[in-house]
Amino acid sequence: MRKRVVIALGGNAILQRGQRGTYEEQMSNVRKTAKQIVEIILDNNYDVIITHGNGPQVGNLLLQQDAGEAYNIPAQPMDVCGAMTQGQIGYMIQQAITNELKKRGLYKPVATIVTQVLVDKDDPAFQNPSKPVGPFYDEETAKKLAREKGWVVIEDSGRGWRRVVPSPGPKDIVEKDVIRDLVERGFIVIASGGGGIPVVEEDGRLKGVEAVIDKDLAGERLAEVVNADVFMILTDVNGAAINYGKPDEKWLGRVTLDELRRYYEEGHFKKGSMGPKVLAAIRFVEWGGERAVIAALDKAVQALKQKTGTQVIRD
Amino acid sequence: MRKRVVIALGGNAILQRGQRGTYEEQMSNVRKTAKQIVEIILDNNYDVIITHGNGPQVGNLLLQQDAGEAYNIPAQPMDVCGAMTQGQIGYMIQQAITNELKKRGLYKPVATIVTQVLVDKDDPAFQNPSKPVGPFYDEETAKKLAREKGWVVIEDSGRGWRRVVPSPGPKDIVEKDVIRDLVERGFIVIASGGGGIPVVEEDGRLKGVEAVIDKDLAGERLAEVVNADVFMILTDVNGAAINYGKPDEKWLGRVTLDELRRYYEEGHFKKGSMGPKVLAAIRFVEWGGERAVIAALDKAVQALKQKTGTQVIRD
Repeated sequence: MRKRVVIALGGNAILQRGQRGTYEEQMSNVRKTAKQIVEIILDNNYDVIITHGNGPQVGNLLLQQDAGEAYNIPAQPMDVCGAMTQGQIGYMIQQAITNELKKRGLYKPVATIVTQVLVDKDDPAFQNPSKPVGPFYDEETAKKLAREKGWVVIEDSGRGWRRVVPSPGPKDIVEKDVIRDLVERGFIVIASGGGGIPVVEEDGRLKGVEAVIDKDLAGERLAEVVNADVFMILTDVNGAAINYGKPDEKWLGRVTLDELRRYYEEGHFKKGSMGPKVLAAIRFVEWGGERAVIAALDKAVQALKQKTGTQVIRD
Repeated sequence: MRKRVVIALGGNAILQRGQRGTYEEQMSNVRKTAKQIVEIILDNNYDVIITHGNGPQVGNLLLQQDAGEAYNIPAQPMDVCGAMTQGQIGYMIQQAITNELKKRGLYKPVATIVTQVLVDKDDPAFQNPSKPVGPFYDEETAKKLAREKGWVVIEDSGRGWRRVVPSPGPKDIVEKDVIRDLVERGFIVIASGGGGIPVVEEDGRLKGVEAVIDKDLAGERLAEVVNADVFMILTDVNGAAINYGKPDEKWLGRVTLDELRRYYEEGHFKKGSMGPKVLAAIRFVEWGGERAVIAALDKAVQALKQKTGTQVIRD
C-alpha cells in the first residue's frame, strides 16, 4: 500500500538567504525543490502533499502594498496578502513539478488549493502579537504607522522596528474535504501555504484576521486531516540539535516522542525557529502519525528513507 | 439529473466602477455576488463552477509592484501577478459562498484552484500586443519604461499611455483533471480566474508568459472541460444588443446560433467588451452546450431560468 507524506517546505525551498526575490531566483530554487519532490514520488512510492512558508514573499508584498499607497492604491489586509502568496508560490511549485514529471515522461495532476486555516478568536496570541512581519522601519516611522493603522510595533533584535502580529494556533483546515478528495485520487496537492489564511468563526461566519499561523504547526494539522503516515519538515539544517551552538551540541537522529518532549520542555529549541518544528513533529506522532522527520531540503530523499535527519518515532 | 453551469463573473461582481479597491468595498460586492450564486445552487438545483475577471485587481497589483521597486523589491512578472489575484479573489469568493451557505444551515465544500491556461506560442497575438494593463503613464514615463523593460506602450483613448500585452486565445485548461474531479464530487469550484495564468509549452515544458487571456473565452474552455450544460456570462448590462447606442438599438433575448453569428460577423459587438462575450457564447453552443447566457449580475437567477438576458440556443 502506498504511503502518504506531508512535506513542509521551508523558505529556502523558494528563496535563498541574501536573494532579493526576483522571479528567476525563486523559480530556479523551486525547480530544484521540484526535482526532490518528484524523486520522492518515484523513488519512495509516496503520495505527496506539499505545504510551504511564505515569509519573504509576503514581506515583499506588504512592502509593495505600502509603497502603492502613495499612488492611492489601497493596501489589502494580511489575510488577503497571504492568499495572494498562496497563488504566487503554489503556481511556481505546481508548474515546476508538472515540468519535472513531464521530463520523465510522466503525468500526474497537481493542484494548489487556496486554504483557510481556522484559529480560535479567543486564542491568547491575539492579546500578545509576537510575529514580526513586513519591512523594517526607523522608530519614528514605526510609531507613526502604529498610531495611524493601529499596528503593534516592536524593536526587532537591533535591526530596526517592525510590525508584529498575533500567531494563533491552527485549529482546523477549512478546505479539508477538498484536499482529502484530491489526495484520495492520487493527485499531488499544494495546500495551506504560509500557514494558511487565518480565519476566525464569528456569529457563525468565517472572517479573515490579521495574523500569521506557523507553517509547520499548520502543516501538522494538514497531515492529520489527510491521514498522513509521515510528516516531513524540510529546512536549511539537517535536523534538530540539543545544546545547539554549545560545545556539547548533539544532533538528534532517531529520537522517541518521550525523549524529544523532554528536550522540548528543557528549552533546547529556539522559539520561532526550531521550536515550532519540534513541536509540530511531537504533535504529529502524538496524534498517531508513524513518523515525523526534520531534515535538510537537499537531503529530502535520504531523510524519508531514514538515512539522515531527525526521525521522531513513538517509541 | 442535476445540471451544470459555468458562471463567468465580470469585474463588477468584485469591484464597482469608481471604487478604489479596498478590501471592504470588494468583500461587500463579493457578498452580494455570493448570495446570487447560492440562490442558483438552491433555487435552480445547479452544480456551479465559477470563473471571474481580475482587471482592477491585477491593475492595482502591477502598480504596487512598480511602486515597490523604489524599495528594491523586485516586481513579479504578469503570470505570477495573475496567480496572485487568483488567490486574492478566489479567497474572497470562497469565504463569502461558505458563509452564505452557512447562513442557510448548509455545508458544501468550495475550492479555488490555481489555474494555468495553455496558449499557443505561435498565436498571432504575440506579434500584436493589444490588451492594456496596469496604470496610465505620461508619454515620457511610458516611453522610458518601454525602453527599460521592453514593454510595448500605446496611447489609450485619450486617457494617457499604457502598457499593452498580447491577448492570445485559450487552448486548454492545464488543471482540468483536478477541476473535473471536484465538480464530479458536487463541490463548488472557482477556477481560471482572470482568464487563467497564461502558459506556453516550450521544449515540452510549461512556461508562464506576459499576456492576458480574455476571461470569457477562457471561461468557455472551462465550460467545455467540465462538460457544462449552460455557460452564463454575468456583466453590468442585461445581455447583448445590436445597433448598440443607435436609435434602432435592439436588445437580444432568445437568439439562435446562426443569427448571433451573423450579427457578430456584421460587427455589432465591441471589441474587448461585448465582442469576446458573444464569441464565447457562440463557441460554447457550437461545441455542443445546451445554452449560453449573457445577463446582468443582479438578474442571474432569473436569467438562468430564461426569464431575462440574452439566451443563445442552437436553433
